[in-house]
Amino acid sequence: MLDPVLARIDADMPQAIQRLLALLRIPSISTDRVHAPDCEAAADWLVQDLTDMGFQAAKHPTEGRPMVVGKGGDGERHLLFYGHYDVQPVDPLHLWNRPPFLPEVEETSNGPVIRGRGASDDKGQLMTFVEACRAWIAVHHRLPARITLFFEGEEESGSPSLRPFMEANRDLLTADLALICDTDLFDRDTPAITTMLRGLLGEEVTITGPRMDLHSGMYGGAAINPIRVLTRILSSLHDGNGRVTVPGFYDGVPEITPGLRAQWDGLGFDEAGFLRDVGLSVPAGEAGRGVLESIWARPTCEFNGISGGYAGDGFKTVLPSKATAKVSFRLVGQQDPLRIRESFREMVRAMVPADCQVEFHGHGASPASVMSTADPAFEKARAALSEEWPRPAAFTGSGGSIPIAGYFKTILGMDSMLIGYAMDDDLIHSPNEKYDVRSFHKGIRSWARILAALA
Amino acid sequence: MLDPVLARIDADMPQAIQRLLALLRIPSISTDRVHAPDCEAAADWLVQDLTDMGFQAAKHPTEGRPMVVGKGGDGERHLLFYGHYDVQPVDPLHLWNRPPFLPEVEETSNGPVIRGRGASDDKGQLMTFVEACRAWIAVHHRLPARITLFFEGEEESGSPSLRPFMEANRDLLTADLALICDTDLFDRDTPAITTMLRGLLGEEVTITGPRMDLHSGMYGGAAINPIRVLTRILSSLHDGNGRVTVPGFYDGVPEITPGLRAQWDGLGFDEAGFLRDVGLSVPAGEAGRGVLESIWARPTCEFNGISGGYAGDGFKTVLPSKATAKVSFRLVGQQDPLRIRESFREMVRAMVPADCQVEFHGHGASPASVMSTADPAFEKARAALSEEWPRPAAFTGSGGSIPIAGYFKTILGMDSMLIGYAMDDDLIHSPNEKYDVRSFHKGIRSWARILAALA
Repeated sequence: MLDPVLARIDADMPQAIQRLLALLRIPSISTDRVHAPDCEAAADWLVQDLTDMGFQAAKHPTEGRPMVVGKGGDGERHLLFYGHYDVQPVDPLHLWNRPPFLPEVEETSNGPVIRGRGASDDKGQLMTFVEACRAWIAVHHRLPARITLFFEGEEESGSPSLRPFMEANRDLLTADLALICDTDLFDRDTPAITTMLRGLLGEEVTITGPRMDLHSGMYGGAAINPIRVLTRILSSLHDGNGRVTVPGFYDGVPEITPGLRAQWDGLGFDEAGFLRDVGLSVPAGEAGRGVLESIWARPTCEFNGISGGYAGDGFKTVLPSKATAKVSFRLVGQQDPLRIRESFREMVRAMVPADCQVEFHGHGASPASVMSTADPAFEKARAALSEEWPRPAAFTGSGGSIPIAGYFKTILGMDSMLIGYAMDDDLIHSPNEKYDVRSFHKGIRSWARILAALA
Repeated sequence: MLDPVLARIDADMPQAIQRLLALLRIPSISTDRVHAPDCEAAADWLVQDLTDMGFQAAKHPTEGRPMVVGKGGDGERHLLFYGHYDVQPVDPLHLWNRPPFLPEVEETSNGPVIRGRGASDDKGQLMTFVEACRAWIAVHHRLPARITLFFEGEEESGSPSLRPFMEANRDLLTADLALICDTDLFDRDTPAITTMLRGLLGEEVTITGPRMDLHSGMYGGAAINPIRVLTRILSSLHDGNGRVTVPGFYDGVPEITPGLRAQWDGLGFDEAGFLRDVGLSVPAGEAGRGVLESIWARPTCEFNGISGGYAGDGFKTVLPSKATAKVSFRLVGQQDPLRIRESFREMVRAMVPADCQVEFHGHGASPASVMSTADPAFEKARAALSEEWPRPAAFTGSGGSIPIAGYFKTILGMDSMLIGYAMDDDLIHSPNEKYDVRSFHKGIRSWARILAALA
């Protein structure tokens, strides 16, 4: 069943590239109202392409850019595929070596690339799945499973319509499993299925001491300094081993399984190189944990911002009234963001002296997304990917949050498989964005294999 | 000798007020070039007034506003009196209840006041001494001592010409003792001679971790966070008793003498009220030290500003490259600012992890000014003041620095007696500035008494 599909994909590559170039020529920038008609045009292009292939496809209006939903195939297994057709703005335009919406295949020392805005993020990635479906239909005149294609046009502007649309269209969208193509390969030769995404709890803490700014000569030594209070609180949030001291913080934090650890060890991750790229050499996480484990599987407490008093040039002898810090916690496993928020606030309150007030402002509280890799679909997909690429695929984590995976879980009750073929040098969001023709080609083949494996 | 002078002062009050009003009508704002001719006019007015009284007086040009120097009297004892004829800007003008340069005597519930810009700071205070000299000359046809009057016109704009002028005119200005009239009464009934001024050492500390801002999801748990490093450093600078932990910091910090402590206890300082005015209730200095002692006679370490990462509205999951704090030390006694700077920097360097860099930027380093109150002039002046006012005068400290006193000491080798009659409700630098007629009247009588005592 699979081999003729892969052969068809190889033979059809020139046409597949022409189709992607056509989609890339539509300047569907979602953040700029001027480009709203272009977003409509990109959605229309997709609806037409899906319809031509035999999908029941339609554009669904929202308060912002439209959603595209296409339905095809049948059978027990129902898979939903997600991608986004909107792209980032192109400023600064003068740094592009070609017009961003006149894409072309360019030869480079790393092989041919498709250069243009959206080539990698996310039109190229989105089309890998569409082309896999096309090849399957061309060869077998049917799809290997029941498939729902779901494309949004607001991912680059915060997806304001996504949750309301999901909530209003549960029946349309709910499937057994979501496939999301918006991530990177682990490295050039190693594909990845992201199965753990850290959650995020944001807290803003403001300490108020005197009710106005004071002169540090007149009051220094008499009046409490809120920066002193705040720095004492923040400095108590990690112990000497880099562990977070908020009571109960590690409740629900699992150790990674030996199997997963073996996969990660097998990745040959270059810790030193990863740190060297940002000017560092010493891992700063919990003592005894490697970098990959620290960013994928361990929770953190980070200080994202601090301010108080005079921060301009020169010096001002002010004893400030207020000091503020923005603190975020990355969460893993079953950590409960709301319980941690309460425990954090209680700990801080206990450290605030009688003369100071503390105010808290919450900025989001989302738990980690942990996919049920016990579902055989995950191992099947991993085996399929491992067939296509030089090195075996791994289940990986992601230090950051990918909101769409959380929405699929909380709103539609679906786990997600995040599989993507982008490279970290694709310059997404930057001038001269590109997508390797190799990523596109092997990406299409990867989806064809995964569809065969999951069907 | 003294009584007829005091009687003459009382009788001449209406004329003395008219003279002050005339000087106040000259809008000698030093920060605004437009008013440069007004500053010349104020200097000319003073030269004329001093000359009329028999002083050898002249205006001395500088690169900015002119200095006025007047010389009169003779004898062993040589006293220099300092004041400034320039005034603060008047914005916002609409908050004044009368034109700021059309001053008048107003009746208030606390007695008559002279209302207008500069009434208290510093023309009214300056004229207390001039009027004391005038009365002495009128009654005895001579001054009781050799007197140099020294008025500058740039005090409200940072005194840029003061040090060069002093350095170029040591012979003209050097006397046995400087008298400075630019400070407050301790309270309505208690005069003060400020004999201790804290010094100031300013340090800016910048910690750099990664060489660029990072995403806290991608790098949180792997890359060192400079805010975390900085807050740990700052939180280590005070121990649990509020003492500064910089090694050697307390070298040269004297305990106040039992005599001085008795004077301060006698002031009946309202600690609770002082703190309540700024919204506080608990003294925040070293354990076991009162507020007055803490701000006048104890050194401090204060955090005047802190910044790093994202400080705007909302949240940004940045792991910043840099974090900065502005730290200042108020110094007393014989504390050596340069040794403390070195010790502080060494302590900080030792706390910076291998992966971070630290940069220091110094912002001034001036030692405390401590007057030699063993000079009998100080006790004589204190006794003279105590005769004039309802309550005995005290030697007090000042938490802030008053640069002129430091310059007299370092450039001209003179101690200073800082004696002033301003009230803390005089609204200096603000709309509706005033000087109590009582301050003006008793101020003139005070100087007459002090001159008699010191002669």
